[in-house]
Amino acid sequence: MIIAVDTAGGEYAPHEVVKGAVKAAQDYNIGIALVGRKDLLHVQTGRYLKKLDMTIVDATQTIEDDESPIEAVNNKPDSSIMMGINLVKTGKAAAFVSAGNTGAVLYSALLGLGRIKGIERPAIASIINISITAPVLLIDSGANANCRPKYLVQFARLGAIYSREVLGVPSPRVGLLNSGEEEGKGNRLMQETYTLLKETDLNFVGNIEGHGLVRGGADVIVTDGFTGNIVLKALEGLGDTFLKLRNVGQVFANARHMQSRHQLFDTGLGSLVRRIDYRESGGACLLGVNGDVIIAHGRSQAKAIRNAIGLAKQSVDSAVCQIIKDQQSQLAASE
Amino acid sequence: MIIAVDTAGGEYAPHEVVKGAVKAAQDYNIGIALVGRKDLLHVQTGRYLKKLDMTIVDATQTIEDDESPIEAVNNKPDSSIMMGINLVKTGKAAAFVSAGNTGAVLYSALLGLGRIKGIERPAIASIINISITAPVLLIDSGANANCRPKYLVQFARLGAIYSREVLGVPSPRVGLLNSGEEEGKGNRLMQETYTLLKETDLNFVGNIEGHGLVRGGADVIVTDGFTGNIVLKALEGLGDTFLKLRNVGQVFANARHMQSRHQLFDTGLGSLVRRIDYRESGGACLLGVNGDVIIAHGRSQAKAIRNAIGLAKQSVDSAVCQIIKDQQSQLAASE
Repeated sequence: MIIAVDTAGGEYAPHEVVKGAVKAAQDYNIGIALVGRKDLLHVQTGRYLKKLDMTIVDATQTIEDDESPIEAVNNKPDSSIMMGINLVKTGKAAAFVSAGNTGAVLYSALLGLGRIKGIERPAIASIINISITAPVLLIDSGANANCRPKYLVQFARLGAIYSREVLGVPSPRVGLLNSGEEEGKGNRLMQETYTLLKETDLNFVGNIEGHGLVRGGADVIVTDGFTGNIVLKALEGLGDTFLKLRNVGQVFANARHMQSRHQLFDTGLGSLVRRIDYRESGGACLLGVNGDVIIAHGRSQAKAIRNAIGLAKQSVDSAVCQIIKDQQSQLAASE
Repeated sequence: MIIAVDTAGGEYAPHEVVKGAVKAAQDYNIGIALVGRKDLLHVQTGRYLKKLDMTIVDATQTIEDDESPIEAVNNKPDSSIMMGINLVKTGKAAAFVSAGNTGAVLYSALLGLGRIKGIERPAIASIINISITAPVLLIDSGANANCRPKYLVQFARLGAIYSREVLGVPSPRVGLLNSGEEEGKGNRLMQETYTLLKETDLNFVGNIEGHGLVRGGADVIVTDGFTGNIVLKALEGLGDTFLKLRNVGQVFANARHMQSRHQLFDTGLGSLVRRIDYRESGGACLLGVNGDVIIAHGRSQAKAIRNAIGLAKQSVDSAVCQIIKDQQSQLAASE
């Protein structure tokens, strides 16, 4: 299996991205296609190219984070993002991982891979790993700012398949992110979506309030991409504040008295720190396009990139994309 | 000054509410009207009634948290919530504080006090106290699930006045909670609101992303009540998880080695714990109605109730309600 990695995307590109890709090639025993500027990559990867199953795909253009996605993708056919997507399209790579401009990855995927029939709006599924019991899949976490109820039902189907096939939840509980628990709560979009979700064969458990993202209660939490983006960034902001408090973690690690140190880690603090730290997380999956695309956090360092590649491998191994296609065909046939 | 307090609302009513009210009467040297079941209250407050400026207003009905607000308010004219609002309406109390059913407080206030002319939708302004630099005012944090751009502009005006008059920010920076920083980002509601906000005389600083709620960047953050509710509860959920980790705070407090203990508190962790703990916060203000109404957290204990009453006093002292009325008159005259 070869996974294509965008080495030009993200705050720590290309250095940390390449480091993470090397680690992934070793840990998962897979092939990596590094997509980016050949001249830069040769210097950094020279000694690995022979030892590991790694190749460089020269992409002479880079899309920056602050560029308008549609314009940038249209004007830069040789960007690392578009070229990575094309490797998936032509079957030269099984999946593509990028920490670059999210809008550009989304638009490139739509252009290059296309939507799966029956899915009107591909969506981003983010794994939120704060709950002690189990991770929660938030979909859509940012692809579609304006949504209709039927899109949200499609997100629910995509999320449920992903949760079952990739995260291994046998019968994923699907919840609707809403401003109250009872049916009838929320804005018009959520009220109408609730009615539609009730009629599906999904394991719909009703509305989930904001704290459900942290405390659990559902395996898949469905929302529009506007709300999803805001709530995800807010949680990240609070997690960040916590991690940065004059470097709490470091102070713990340096605690002189082992007894106190153990007391602290006993509280579960160490484990929470790991769970809320996006440097540890594996990124988000773009669902509903014809191919496996993983969107890593823009501030991913080596470990996060390595984990994102691991997530890509899991997605490919589980054939989640084909399963989504099959389900959509069945749905279409039954209608 | 007399402040009316709903002793039947909230998870810890009436015991903790009364305790908080007693503390507030002592600390702020104000009068308190305890609204609730006389028989219950007499037992708990007997020894304070003579010493402090406290009275009991008998309210024989209680609106529960899970009741439908409109129905409950209409069917229970003698509820503690409606009676508390009526004390403000008739001038017998300067403000009303309730930790009860938020929807019922909102609807009672609309019925009993009415809207300030020019404000189409009263909104809830919550003080988020996580940012190290300064508190952030989130408006609307839950009153209006469906919003139009012009309502959000009204929220911005209400929030700016509150921030200036009550929180003491000289020229409050107003931001729009959105899924990206640049103009043009977000859903249609936020795109149109952005255009309107630019044209006002407010100190509008543009879009604020989710992490801005934590990191700052604006003094007033404007959103619709659906998004506001979800993001507030999500932050609360994460804060809660953190506080509950086998009681981190307690472990710190008990740390045997003073050196380690100081090291920990040095990190700012103790201060963050206090800031994210809703038990310490003073509640939220309902803005845009003809009177001062404070909505305390449903899980408020004595300290939070005491602080909510303190916030009510601050609101009354600053005459924020009258200032909103004056501004609305001026706006109407200038149009």
